[in-house]
Amino acid sequence: MIPAGFAAQGLASGIKASGADDLALVATVSRRPVEAAAVFTRNLAAAAPVVVSRRHLAASGGRCGAVIMNSGCANAATGRAGVAAAEATAAVTARELGLAPEEVLVCSTGLIGHELPLERITAAVPELCSGLERSDEALVQAARAIMTTDTREKLAACPLEGSPGSTVAGIGKGAAMLAPDMATMLAVVLTDASVPAPLLQRALGQAVESTFNRLSIDGCTSTNDTVVALASGESGRPTGEVELVRALTEVCASLAHQMAADAEGGTKVVHVVVTGAATDAEALRAARKVADASLVKCSWYGGDPNWGRVLSEVCTAGVRVDPDRVELSYGPHVVFAEGEPVASDEAALRAYLAQPEFEVRADLHVGTGKGEILSADLTHGYVDENMGLS
Amino acid sequence: MIPAGFAAQGLASGIKASGADDLALVATVSRRPVEAAAVFTRNLAAAAPVVVSRRHLAASGGRCGAVIMNSGCANAATGRAGVAAAEATAAVTARELGLAPEEVLVCSTGLIGHELPLERITAAVPELCSGLERSDEALVQAARAIMTTDTREKLAACPLEGSPGSTVAGIGKGAAMLAPDMATMLAVVLTDASVPAPLLQRALGQAVESTFNRLSIDGCTSTNDTVVALASGESGRPTGEVELVRALTEVCASLAHQMAADAEGGTKVVHVVVTGAATDAEALRAARKVADASLVKCSWYGGDPNWGRVLSEVCTAGVRVDPDRVELSYGPHVVFAEGEPVASDEAALRAYLAQPEFEVRADLHVGTGKGEILSADLTHGYVDENMGLS
Repeated sequence: MIPAGFAAQGLASGIKASGADDLALVATVSRRPVEAAAVFTRNLAAAAPVVVSRRHLAASGGRCGAVIMNSGCANAATGRAGVAAAEATAAVTARELGLAPEEVLVCSTGLIGHELPLERITAAVPELCSGLERSDEALVQAARAIMTTDTREKLAACPLEGSPGSTVAGIGKGAAMLAPDMATMLAVVLTDASVPAPLLQRALGQAVESTFNRLSIDGCTSTNDTVVALASGESGRPTGEVELVRALTEVCASLAHQMAADAEGGTKVVHVVVTGAATDAEALRAARKVADASLVKCSWYGGDPNWGRVLSEVCTAGVRVDPDRVELSYGPHVVFAEGEPVASDEAALRAYLAQPEFEVRADLHVGTGKGEILSADLTHGYVDENMGLS
Repeated sequence: MIPAGFAAQGLASGIKASGADDLALVATVSRRPVEAAAVFTRNLAAAAPVVVSRRHLAASGGRCGAVIMNSGCANAATGRAGVAAAEATAAVTARELGLAPEEVLVCSTGLIGHELPLERITAAVPELCSGLERSDEALVQAARAIMTTDTREKLAACPLEGSPGSTVAGIGKGAAMLAPDMATMLAVVLTDASVPAPLLQRALGQAVESTFNRLSIDGCTSTNDTVVALASGESGRPTGEVELVRALTEVCASLAHQMAADAEGGTKVVHVVVTGAATDAEALRAARKVADASLVKCSWYGGDPNWGRVLSEVCTAGVRVDPDRVELSYGPHVVFAEGEPVASDEAALRAYLAQPEFEVRADLHVGTGKGEILSADLTHGYVDENMGLS
């Protein structure tokens, strides 16, 4: 699975009090920089690692030899000391691998407002670097070390069409504070195809827009969202833009789906599909309004076909809509049309909603705009996870 | 408490399977119409009673003799049959009281998408009308009959300054699907002062804007929100606009606070106060973003000073803000300023957040705009209440 030219590793550096893995590294086997692209959070309170990684990618002109990532501390809202700690993390990694500091990108995830325990990271980097391996197991190990409340590692891979022997693979994490806006939670996507950085950036932007940016667990956009793409060129094959976008999109879509399936406290993956809107943007806006409504999300948890709440949200989304023309359905089961409830097979409907993954559809019958948001239910487990004195 | 000229009553008509009270009436003692004003939901999927009441108030030229309200069924998303049922409810009430149908307003609250059991209402209206009483107990009885998941009746009253002997009193209900937009959940406000309908409408609009419209339990704007104001003129005293707005605002603010305190599953009333924004509108927008964020609301439940989530929401609210200038505090306890965490007395901070009501403040230090949203926490109880197959 791991594309040629890359190695990875993960270990426990002591950032997490639990002793779980918390430090991950993805680097080139050659210890030389390769073509790189990244998208970051649009949250104005961008975390220190986002500030530093943006700066490094600009300074290196889209070249990167290593991405060092920690969980257990977001290094966000930590002021100048936080930026210095992110810089120091990159510097110590660069020194160990023989790279320039700006050829290292840094990602952090965890609690906001806590100081990064830099000395623990510094102490662990030599072992992390010397342990780099070109194996799939090592990539899984890296994916494990960036988990916070995630319960499963998230990995995805697919071959790159038209570029025989080239693959795209990625790792990611994310379970809450998850409503990526032009970016996502942490993800690293690797390919061994030959891709110049500008093309990689353009293709990554397109892939993210139709995958991570259509994911919303709780409507809360993180301070640390980052997706990095690296192209080693080791397969010796160039790639067409269409094929590259397709492969990146497949990998990003799989990672996004894995995040929805592992949402904090989540028991259901729900596709909210809006069609017949005036524009695609309005369809997405309506879908997002439904997906982020607490009342709607609780009804999914109980498997309750409470479509009145869906209608209410669609009609307060600020989009062009006439409630008398809206058609609502759960998968194949139409429940509301032409302004009135539609009698449905109650038992079949409840069985449909008892599934671990289902679809909620609203056809506005206004135009041809369509959009889909991937979401999850709001449960006791989500409350448990987030009320906590942690 | 009940202003001169008004009578009320409530009873169980059988709409609710539980046998709880579900039908309420507020009417004039004279059985003649008085000056009336109302604001309604801006949800495009307005319920049948909202459609009918809007029409009646326009047809009567701001005159109303009775407001009939039911709980247990919202009569929303019920098509033409729903509108006919709301019209029939008004008609039977009008006939019983000797009023014209358009002099009766109708309100409903409860589940969306269910047919109104009209025959039960029709059968109960004669007893409801003959039971009308000018007592405070009867007003409490009416307040009780409009409760859904509310656990307490909501009433408020205050004297009308400069108009000796005149009072303003109101009843209301609301515990979820509660984020009024230019209107609120059900509320009826009464005064015995002499107020022409246009002045009453203007004053009611102002009072609602600074009270109910600053309340958000879950960010979900209902299909049935309605506030009606009636002025009997029985005190024989006119009133100045300033004094009227002040008294209406006091009554509406009290009812809004009672709704927040009785939020579904709620254990905390939280004031989210944003100051130093570029404009008042941006302050309100930022406050609403914080108040509606599931992650933030869960932290309130646990009394967890997780201010990083507050910063993250303020910085994704789409307002002018620089995170390095934001100051965050819980009441008197400053936790973040000048881009860095501020060490605070942890024990005092936790004690502050353990209170049943507290304040979360963000000073953006950008301008002079300010705004406040009244909200509640997100709890296991909210999930229980709303996952349900009901």
